[in-house]
Amino acid sequence: MTDTRDFSLSCPIPKTDYPTVLLAHGGGGTLMQRLLETVFFPTFQNEILDQHHDAAVFPVPHGRIAFTTDSYVVNPLFFPGGDIGSLAVHGTVNDLAMSGARPLALSAGFILEEGLPMETLERVVRSMQAAAAQVDVPIVTGDTKVVDRGKGDGIFINTAGIGIIEHGLEISPRSVREGGAVLINGDLGRHGIAILAVREGLAFETAIESDSAPLADLVQQLLQAGLRIQCLRDLTRGGLASALNEIAEVSGLTIALDERAIPVREDVRGACELLGFDPLYVANEGRMAAIIDPEDVDNALEIMAAHPQGQGAAVIGRVTSRAAAPVVMTSRIGSSRIVDRLSGEQLPRIC
Amino acid sequence: MTDTRDFSLSCPIPKTDYPTVLLAHGGGGTLMQRLLETVFFPTFQNEILDQHHDAAVFPVPHGRIAFTTDSYVVNPLFFPGGDIGSLAVHGTVNDLAMSGARPLALSAGFILEEGLPMETLERVVRSMQAAAAQVDVPIVTGDTKVVDRGKGDGIFINTAGIGIIEHGLEISPRSVREGGAVLINGDLGRHGIAILAVREGLAFETAIESDSAPLADLVQQLLQAGLRIQCLRDLTRGGLASALNEIAEVSGLTIALDERAIPVREDVRGACELLGFDPLYVANEGRMAAIIDPEDVDNALEIMAAHPQGQGAAVIGRVTSRAAAPVVMTSRIGSSRIVDRLSGEQLPRIC
Repeated sequence: MTDTRDFSLSCPIPKTDYPTVLLAHGGGGTLMQRLLETVFFPTFQNEILDQHHDAAVFPVPHGRIAFTTDSYVVNPLFFPGGDIGSLAVHGTVNDLAMSGARPLALSAGFILEEGLPMETLERVVRSMQAAAAQVDVPIVTGDTKVVDRGKGDGIFINTAGIGIIEHGLEISPRSVREGGAVLINGDLGRHGIAILAVREGLAFETAIESDSAPLADLVQQLLQAGLRIQCLRDLTRGGLASALNEIAEVSGLTIALDERAIPVREDVRGACELLGFDPLYVANEGRMAAIIDPEDVDNALEIMAAHPQGQGAAVIGRVTSRAAAPVVMTSRIGSSRIVDRLSGEQLPRIC
Repeated sequence: MTDTRDFSLSCPIPKTDYPTVLLAHGGGGTLMQRLLETVFFPTFQNEILDQHHDAAVFPVPHGRIAFTTDSYVVNPLFFPGGDIGSLAVHGTVNDLAMSGARPLALSAGFILEEGLPMETLERVVRSMQAAAAQVDVPIVTGDTKVVDRGKGDGIFINTAGIGIIEHGLEISPRSVREGGAVLINGDLGRHGIAILAVREGLAFETAIESDSAPLADLVQQLLQAGLRIQCLRDLTRGGLASALNEIAEVSGLTIALDERAIPVREDVRGACELLGFDPLYVANEGRMAAIIDPEDVDNALEIMAAHPQGQGAAVIGRVTSRAAAPVVMTSRIGSSRIVDRLSGEQLPRIC
């Protein structure tokens, strides 16, 4: 599906379905057409996709739009709580949500490895569509490439997203002000640990599921309640610590955390200790930090507590004038420490 | 650069530059930051990119927007007439242009293989920026992932693009009408043959360079002249034959070609004969078919002839009621043949 047009042709297509992806499925001929007709088109179907053209065309209201992209190379493709397909929708929808945008449309670019079982592709595509339908955002344009065996790794997915900004706030690290309250919408560390557990064959007493989830609806509810949101940030690669460091550095202020207030499940904390990870640096895929005016904290917590993606919401810190470092934390035993930016990496191919 | 925000941080970054890409360059920590600060940010720099946020935010005029995506996995990364970087800009800009959209912004998602020479990445990124600057379209948001050695192939790039449609035409296969004139903007087959020549180590008397080029400006000129454009289509994977089959199938009409009118350079024709390819099916990256009202042909040819991307423009056929097949061709010796859709593939990883 080099383009939307490819999804909907009615030309003669081969009678045979292949059990695995062939190089020819990316070649622009009848086999690619067959793949579109049997897998992508029926699954993603929507009015815009059905335009038969090189680009999806749709009206947008006048105003500011948000535009973002992410490629997903997570290994393994399937993990407790999600898979590369749902992740590719949640991650990009969440990037749009972090600017306060209402997501309008997604694109989907697939890079498939020759030999990929067709069943695996179908499972991923169905999962993408389910995740997109959950947030009511159509996948309106797409592309498929196939690379030779050993030159890819099953499936890589890129999603780009467009959203519309319907509020007047400047949601940005530059809007962060001294006194701002720092909230998160739930417990930390589950996505990274869920991936690692599968990858390393680790078994914990209870299965740790990824927190992968879409945050756009929760953000819309916070905006509609008139909350004065200064900044939003999803807590993906590099976790909470990296996100807050970025915000604090841009704002020139310090974020002071209270370790006791940061929710981490006991099983996740145990897994982190076992594996030598700090949950503050572990990737999440359904968690955000929200910095808001302190007067709005009660209202925000109430909205979050009533929302599926806000269970376990907490105030974890506040914004101060620049202290010893961009991010500092009062530990459980009352001592103060600097929370640095992650150097190097903890977990490769987490998303 | 998971997001635009990553491009512009001023945190402490490692003093050492690495000669090759490491897994940690995609990990969300200081090494990724260093890559952004030294390679992506200074090269792509523009106001929107500099917003420090999860998504690029910019105003759009009220109206219809066009949205498209393509992943690029071309092998080799560099070829006569272009490279994966310029191709990733041209291809997506051209997809926007084919709906008559004026391109507004591009995203760039990189999937890098561990061990990629940093110099190679820098060369590709510079080439992308040069191509983007040529068409005056900023790269406003991006993402970088790194996969383990042997799980990728140097560089894969996804670009998505947003454009604005400022005309009232419905440029689409559904707008194609009997009597429409079929034009192309230049000679066929150079991109595919240029790639193959490098890949197979073939030497021809003269170097055959890819035709990779941006078509948005040419299309804007045709629109501004008030031409009644029915349909536009770029002639990428599957070449002219596949593109015209798609259009003819959707429209329910037949496109009748005149082989003598289709420009193919002698060296390209020779290479095709040698290699067993038909130039009608070979991929181009700077060529389009334009179906327009017959009264506008002279005007269109004049505009094309005066444009760098329209040298060699020609009328190659016309739209008729449905004949023996969706696409038919009168050969040089006067016989008629059916021009089928490409079955399977000719050249893998051509774009």
